[in-house]
Amino acid sequence: MQKSEFEGKIKGSHQEENSNGRIRIPMSSLGNSNNIFWQECPVGKLERQKLINQKGCVVWITGLSGSGKSTLAFSLNRQLFSRGKLSYVLDGDNLRHGLNKDLGFSAEDRTENIRRVGEVAKLFADAGMICIASLISPYRKDRDACRAMLPDSNFIEVFMNTPLSLCESRDPKGLYKLARAGKIKGFTGIDDPYEPPLQCEIELQQIDGVCPTPTAMGGQVVSYLEEKGYLEDQ
Amino acid sequence: MQKSEFEGKIKGSHQEENSNGRIRIPMSSLGNSNNIFWQECPVGKLERQKLINQKGCVVWITGLSGSGKSTLAFSLNRQLFSRGKLSYVLDGDNLRHGLNKDLGFSAEDRTENIRRVGEVAKLFADAGMICIASLISPYRKDRDACRAMLPDSNFIEVFMNTPLSLCESRDPKGLYKLARAGKIKGFTGIDDPYEPPLQCEIELQQIDGVCPTPTAMGGQVVSYLEEKGYLEDQ
Repeated sequence: MQKSEFEGKIKGSHQEENSNGRIRIPMSSLGNSNNIFWQECPVGKLERQKLINQKGCVVWITGLSGSGKSTLAFSLNRQLFSRGKLSYVLDGDNLRHGLNKDLGFSAEDRTENIRRVGEVAKLFADAGMICIASLISPYRKDRDACRAMLPDSNFIEVFMNTPLSLCESRDPKGLYKLARAGKIKGFTGIDDPYEPPLQCEIELQQIDGVCPTPTAMGGQVVSYLEEKGYLEDQ
Repeated sequence: MQKSEFEGKIKGSHQEENSNGRIRIPMSSLGNSNNIFWQECPVGKLERQKLINQKGCVVWITGLSGSGKSTLAFSLNRQLFSRGKLSYVLDGDNLRHGLNKDLGFSAEDRTENIRRVGEVAKLFADAGMICIASLISPYRKDRDACRAMLPDSNFIEVFMNTPLSLCESRDPKGLYKLARAGKIKGFTGIDDPYEPPLQCEIELQQIDGVCPTPTAMGGQVVSYLEEKGYLEDQ
């Protein structure tokens, strides 16, 4: 533990962020000299990463409803766990019951929904975790805004390139049926566009008309993370 | 790793949450039987906690501007790290540059600010981390709403009971001076109330007119966490 030096009472002091993103606290010259102290540095991302032997990042899974995002998220989550790596799934639907419960489905609210998930994912990555965000996130500009929040290429975009016809045939939540019947408006893929990524890190799709298994899909992402050093001891 | 069983392609299926908060995926009987599969269970909080040998919780530090919240947060963060425990600081000011950058200081916006931090802290605790939230959070109802989000007493409220006169003499950001000059309106402690907790887990205050050192304050919270089993192997 880093030692603190005190000459008396606690005193807040000016904080400056240095190039490592760590907070440096210069000795304050304000007020009573008895109040001067060195504030302990907060633990930085590198230290957290060393503690848990991995590198924090965001795996952002995008695709149509029914494209297999949650399936991949759970499989990846499980496979990372089995390797002793700490990951956490941020599920778009679940967050709409909590953090984003004040948001609807207007274009503006969708953008805000994704912005907040991006901000939270960024915090998780900074905490050293492998954050798996699973959201339809249909608009390119919203996803790119989340990518821009993450430094050093720690945003790994995974595109579930599953044909609309297959997603619709699965229709796990019955939403396509409602959208086709006009009971849901602005449904992605039906009457609202899905903009596929132009440059994503990973694209998952059918091979010869057969979808890869969840284990195979998760494995593909694990391999990517391994190759890029996210699973190595830091 | 739990095994998945497949009889063909991926198919979304109905999800039910069981009493452990884990997702159970019954075998779907919809559609083509070739599409039936068992979905892998996501990793649960208990498993994550076992992986990193600690219990997720929220340490919520409340108090006036200049009361020593950040100082305590950093010291606690550092002390936990030195014991090999993973914690993360959510700082109210920092979050206003990211997640909460759309919010101002109206009563409504303050409430929303605290709600969002509470929701994020809840996610961190669910991820297995010791989440240290440091916010003035002046209103009791807002703090209590965050407490209500957390199950099983995993919300540890720490009240920095530092006299206003001392906070004002420190005035680390020069805000009290501005508030006294009328240049900031609605400043907590000056022209906006601070409602002290009625029942908090930990209260930190001066002893014989002397503030405890950051190390001592952090140590008090560490002792509490230790006593309650948050630092034990799970």
